[in-house]
Amino acid sequence: MEYRIGLIGCGTVGQGLLEILDKKREYLRDACGFEARVVAITDKIKGTLLVPEGIDIPAVLAVLGRGGSLADYPKAKPGQAEPLDPLDMIEKTDADIIAELTYTNIETGEPATSYVKKALRTGKHVVTSNKGPAALHYRELQDLARKNGLQFRIEGTVMSGTPVFHLVESGLAGNDIREVKGILNGTTNFILTKMETDGMDYHDALKLAQKLGYAEADPTADVEGFDALAKIVILSNVLMGGSLKTSDVKRKGISSISLADVAAARKEGCRFKLIAQAKKDGGGVTASVSPQKLPLSDPLAGVMGAHNALSFDTDLMGKVTIQGAGAGKIETGFSILSDLLAIHRCR
Amino acid sequence: MEYRIGLIGCGTVGQGLLEILDKKREYLRDACGFEARVVAITDKIKGTLLVPEGIDIPAVLAVLGRGGSLADYPKAKPGQAEPLDPLDMIEKTDADIIAELTYTNIETGEPATSYVKKALRTGKHVVTSNKGPAALHYRELQDLARKNGLQFRIEGTVMSGTPVFHLVESGLAGNDIREVKGILNGTTNFILTKMETDGMDYHDALKLAQKLGYAEADPTADVEGFDALAKIVILSNVLMGGSLKTSDVKRKGISSISLADVAAARKEGCRFKLIAQAKKDGGGVTASVSPQKLPLSDPLAGVMGAHNALSFDTDLMGKVTIQGAGAGKIETGFSILSDLLAIHRCR
Repeated sequence: MEYRIGLIGCGTVGQGLLEILDKKREYLRDACGFEARVVAITDKIKGTLLVPEGIDIPAVLAVLGRGGSLADYPKAKPGQAEPLDPLDMIEKTDADIIAELTYTNIETGEPATSYVKKALRTGKHVVTSNKGPAALHYRELQDLARKNGLQFRIEGTVMSGTPVFHLVESGLAGNDIREVKGILNGTTNFILTKMETDGMDYHDALKLAQKLGYAEADPTADVEGFDALAKIVILSNVLMGGSLKTSDVKRKGISSISLADVAAARKEGCRFKLIAQAKKDGGGVTASVSPQKLPLSDPLAGVMGAHNALSFDTDLMGKVTIQGAGAGKIETGFSILSDLLAIHRCR
Repeated sequence: MEYRIGLIGCGTVGQGLLEILDKKREYLRDACGFEARVVAITDKIKGTLLVPEGIDIPAVLAVLGRGGSLADYPKAKPGQAEPLDPLDMIEKTDADIIAELTYTNIETGEPATSYVKKALRTGKHVVTSNKGPAALHYRELQDLARKNGLQFRIEGTVMSGTPVFHLVESGLAGNDIREVKGILNGTTNFILTKMETDGMDYHDALKLAQKLGYAEADPTADVEGFDALAKIVILSNVLMGGSLKTSDVKRKGISSISLADVAAARKEGCRFKLIAQAKKDGGGVTASVSPQKLPLSDPLAGVMGAHNALSFDTDLMGKVTIQGAGAGKIETGFSILSDLLAIHRCR
């Protein structure tokens, strides 16, 4: 079955998705019965393409790889590469599914939330790796999707393509999730790993993370725990029935952890990790983000470098832990594909 | 939606499933839209019940808990508790789904394989935790199921209810699995853990495992790697397109590992684990079971006690590792429920 896909945002994640759709076209068709026709791409910086007959993916990736804009796409017919606001693109395209891949604004969730709503109101499924709409408006958007017989899927918002929501929806279905506890930010885990294994101090480890592209020039969102906070809010509200706001979560980052703290923990047979956790508590859910000293026997203590991991404490299966990539072009691109395939399986 | 379920085998796993169906009846109905009516149970030792209107689960669990036979079920009407061969039970019952829960025979796969075939030929889905049919006849049984528009599901054959097949089917769909590597036997992992952390020698650790019910009186299947071998054959053939026979797999158990070996490994910063692995190799798949010294940085090195874990090496997501229980009454009972819920989702 073929799906018409529209992309809003064509940075790293969007291009990762396009690469996968191109390289694995035959595999996806033969193994999963899934075919994708990309009919629209719009990007704040790179412009817009609206091509109902389908965009030639290698051609558009070549243009973008050269630093070009979508207006340079060589196969565009007249009118197909005109500038267009994403809201108008959603209106005009005949896409079955919109992939919302713009940047996270954790204060307002905008403009992504407006794009998601517009897509759902015009009969399009939405898949996204954007934490804003999921952390701030999940229930409202999920209700809107359901009301319209559509899906709103968010696998990429927590651990890139490492399955979190798919895992709970399928393999753990039937379990009550009493607690989740995880390492949900690769940058801070990389820094803590470098402090422990190479004896780097915090600032040198942060500089290395920036040099390797793990950390932004302004690292606040990662090192002060805001990124992990958004993710634990999503997990609380989506998987545990919570209705947390970001301001409900206690948050402490890793910038005050010293090499001496790391060494002292090691003497106790422990290791510092930035832990995001959420727990059912009476009728509600409480959540926090903080550096914790874990004993080495904890499944999360062994998660090193930029990897992420999440432990679910369940009523039937006890603890189940999944570990994998938490970021990356192809990995987050895959999170979008995994949601597209889920829509395909539930057709 | 209500499903009529028939159980073949009502030992630990069957009773675990019945407990879950009873305790979580409302949750499963409200959260998953799933209802189960157990219409038949047959067990080599405990007899048969054939109750189209549905068996009262607390009543039958009470009888079995007292060590009684199914003939003692107090609510049976005349003729409902007559002795019946499982093949006849499959013929007579109007169950939608048969849960095959008899003991594994890894030489022949019988009698379980005959039960599975009979069920599929009479229009019933099959779910099973029995390694025999899955290790020896997976492709044939899957083809038979497909031909009849039915499902043959085997989540419980590898890590009890810790999701392996569900994970690959949903969250990792679209990935090519190039290699799997895991700790798939809890008994041997418990013994190795006790040798390392408590300095017990192999024989004392084995005795403790037997005392705690982790190991059988004849521990050969576990300690010599036969159990892990059956599981790696299943993973190879189901997830990686292999067509391995059990005799194709190199196997070495842990009975020759000494305390001195464990100590020497520790000095190198390593830890012995019984590792089952399978790798795509040219057009085929090669697999082995053997004790390996893993560096402590390996995600599998931190898996202690009776826990199991499995790492998938994939083309898009790199390494993804899942860790959880590998055995247990409720855990394996849940594996059956998870397959029932999968049939429900795909209805």
